[in-house]
Amino acid sequence: MTKIRTPIIIVNCKTYSEATGKKAIELAKVAENVSLETEVCIGLASQFVDIAPIAHTVSIPIFAQHIDPVKTGSSTGHVLAESVKEAGAVGTLINHSERQLKLVDIEAAIARARETGLVSVVCANNTVVSAAVAALKPDMIAVEPPELIGTGIPVSKAKPEVITGAIELVKRINPDVVVLCGAGITKGEDVAAALKLGTEGVLVASGIVKAKNPYKVLLEFAEAITKA
Amino acid sequence: MTKIRTPIIIVNCKTYSEATGKKAIELAKVAENVSLETEVCIGLASQFVDIAPIAHTVSIPIFAQHIDPVKTGSSTGHVLAESVKEAGAVGTLINHSERQLKLVDIEAAIARARETGLVSVVCANNTVVSAAVAALKPDMIAVEPPELIGTGIPVSKAKPEVITGAIELVKRINPDVVVLCGAGITKGEDVAAALKLGTEGVLVASGIVKAKNPYKVLLEFAEAITKA
Amino acid sequence: MTKIRTPIIIVNCKTYSEATGKKAIELAKVAENVSLETEVCIGLASQFVDIAPIAHTVSIPIFAQHIDPVKTGSSTGHVLAESVKEAGAVGTLINHSERQLKLVDIEAAIARARETGLVSVVCANNTVVSAAVAALKPDMIAVEPPELIGTGIPVSKAKPEVITGAIELVKRINPDVVVLCGAGITKGEDVAAALKLGTEGVLVASGIVKAKNPYKVLLEFAEAITKA
Amino acid sequence: MTKIRTPIIIVNCKTYSEATGKKAIELAKVAENVSLETEVCIGLASQFVDIAPIAHTVSIPIFAQHIDPVKTGSSTGHVLAESVKEAGAVGTLINHSERQLKLVDIEAAIARARETGLVSVVCANNTVVSAAVAALKPDMIAVEPPELIGTGIPVSKAKPEVITGAIELVKRINPDVVVLCGAGITKGEDVAAALKLGTEGVLVASGIVKAKNPYKVLLEFAEAITKA
Repeated sequence: MTKIRTPIIIVNCKTYSEATGKKAIELAKVAENVSLETEVCIGLASQFVDIAPIAHTVSIPIFAQHIDPVKTGSSTGHVLAESVKEAGAVGTLINHSERQLKLVDIEAAIARARETGLVSVVCANNTVVSAAVAALKPDMIAVEPPELIGTGIPVSKAKPEVITGAIELVKRINPDVVVLCGAGITKGEDVAAALKLGTEGVLVASGIVKAKNPYKVLLEFAEAITKA
Repeated sequence: MTKIRTPIIIVNCKTYSEATGKKAIELAKVAENVSLETEVCIGLASQFVDIAPIAHTVSIPIFAQHIDPVKTGSSTGHVLAESVKEAGAVGTLINHSERQLKLVDIEAAIARARETGLVSVVCANNTVVSAAVAALKPDMIAVEPPELIGTGIPVSKAKPEVITGAIELVKRINPDVVVLCGAGITKGEDVAAALKLGTEGVLVASGIVKAKNPYKVLLEFAEAITKA
Repeated sequence: MTKIRTPIIIVNCKTYSEATGKKAIELAKVAENVSLETEVCIGLASQFVDIAPIAHTVSIPIFAQHIDPVKTGSSTGHVLAESVKEAGAVGTLINHSERQLKLVDIEAAIARARETGLVSVVCANNTVVSAAVAALKPDMIAVEPPELIGTGIPVSKAKPEVITGAIELVKRINPDVVVLCGAGITKGEDVAAALKLGTEGVLVASGIVKAKNPYKVLLEFAEAITKA
Repeated sequence: MTKIRTPIIIVNCKTYSEATGKKAIELAKVAENVSLETEVCIGLASQFVDIAPIAHTVSIPIFAQHIDPVKTGSSTGHVLAESVKEAGAVGTLINHSERQLKLVDIEAAIARARETGLVSVVCANNTVVSAAVAALKPDMIAVEPPELIGTGIPVSKAKPEVITGAIELVKRINPDVVVLCGAGITKGEDVAAALKLGTEGVLVASGIVKAKNPYKVLLEFAEAITKA
């Protein structure tokens, strides 16, 4: 059940107080319950310090929110792919709009993920950048126009052409890459719209983490996938 | 025993394979044993993902290797002071020479540590920078000339004037700051020399982590303190 | 007349279209005229590419807006102190809130300015950071709370305690440093207030560059100094 | 003659003392002479402060070594495309290995160059990164394995597969992009080898700037192109 399958919902905990420490574990249990009920793959991208306790508690795929393009050795304060893996993560976000990297470091971080068996989910802000990322051969690309993040205006409805355009460019360069979309997704219908556009899942944060009832909204998301 | 006392030895795990995951826990146990035997305060600055498992296992002070100057909220991939605290750390390194920060971010990170009850240990590369850091009111400053890091040439012997100069400038600006020193420390006599220069402890990495017998070397370090 | 004297008004061109290329030269001539009329020292911090043409045309002190802490050699795309000097600048801003540097790079940039005979004007966002900068021994510190930049709300009136607090801390650490203030300064009375608080001048941008009549406003600023 | 044609030789002045200020103008004159004699297009990527004086003196294409992805306004210390253009440059390097950018900033800088009519020459360190850059639609890509920069070991001979691989990937993604190569090029035969591999020119720095007789070596380079 920690295996990653598509379509996938990845819940990004960011540094939200509602998704830190014990609360992150509670959220992971909610995600696990919805995943068990619906058989939809639901991953959680937790803060670094929460990876081990969460991975210990639940059987859903846990992602780091970032890794650094460093190797074992003298990299104080950096996030080593091997450590993230040993702590129990199965994948990692890379280049989230809140944690952007230099181009060469994205390439190196993808390589480090590949070497250590972590699934790489690289974020891109628009179609052209998505195409560039595709050339770097990540496992997944999450297309997220940053101007929509946290707005509740779903990218799948407000800017469908960004998603379809990204998919077209990405698939031409690298047909193996899984494309997700994110930003502003708060309802099941947003998820359904995202799948209809050709994505294989969503990256969501406040839509779940800040929901009054995360279980209910996540269930709605998952059912949008099972019905698709 | 998780309380921080001076003189203190802080062992920096960096991203060394010898101090990652299970091996980091082993190293923490070694540190705990030496601390119990000698009653010298020994802290461990572990990788982020290892903080919780280590803090769960041992009763020595655990430090993060870095925190970001962010608050709870939308800071994907960043290290939140509150999370580090909840995971079990009692302090954090800031501005290690391998993870340097902008001046304003050092100030903000110190403030975040203060707000969350984490002991801040800010690294500085020379006397003048140590003085600047002192003005920012951290709890501790670790003076580490980067050109000596990992060399086995102890700063306390090779550049004693950097240490004494830093202590003099630091104390004039802020007499409450604890000054540690680091870089190249591999023997008990290097620790003794550091204390003689007026520091209240050492920050050490490869000297312990890469030692054939970390227990033996750490014991030598601790005994240099008890004999001082 | 290219010598720097205090009190001083430094006009920061930023990347404003009103202060780029030919328009920057026009602005420099305005500054020169006001300086000649009032005998107040007025400097101009221009974009890098405009330094040489401006320095060729007028006899007021020209500053770079930034230098990198690099030496001659392989630093493509960086700003070398020697080049800035040879182009005709007599000083440089360092660590402006729009171009912040790591702590060690501020120290290194100040050292590079000193070595090449450039006057260093280091920006600081608050009292504590001003104190830290003072320990690095720049020639001048410009205290600029970033939240007031471009607002027209003068720091000298809205937050006088930031300025007086900065001066007190700075002078205790390093009595030789000249303290300027900036942010929100648009009138002669703001300049007068700044001097009354103990500063030796102002760093101003939009207040002059975006003024309908830069000559008139700059004259008002200069007269506030001559009357002080 | 300031028009850019291919094949092209671009000489990168870096921050070499031999290519700063008056010496940069001398080098530009040498480049102009060789260009006039051989009718080969030779560009010079000078330091920012030297662009205007050089562009005033010679009629060869001048490049900036970097631009920032900023617009006119409040970007103190940054390099504005419009300013570089007005100073007389016709193009700019972007993402040189000594001045690397975040992925989104490379895209934004290319867009700024396009908007202002500057030819964008984006540097890439290997084949995969070259492919990613191609998706961002720059005018030219300079493939430069950083481990060969300044070594005198020409990429066109030591790692021909990096160049041919880059050309193949780049052309598949974007057939309009001009591919140059760089790193370690010191002789006419290295230039000939580069053209034979399918590049349309070279980016060179120390091979010309640090040559005992830059005129002679540059002539050798240009003749390798005319004979190709």
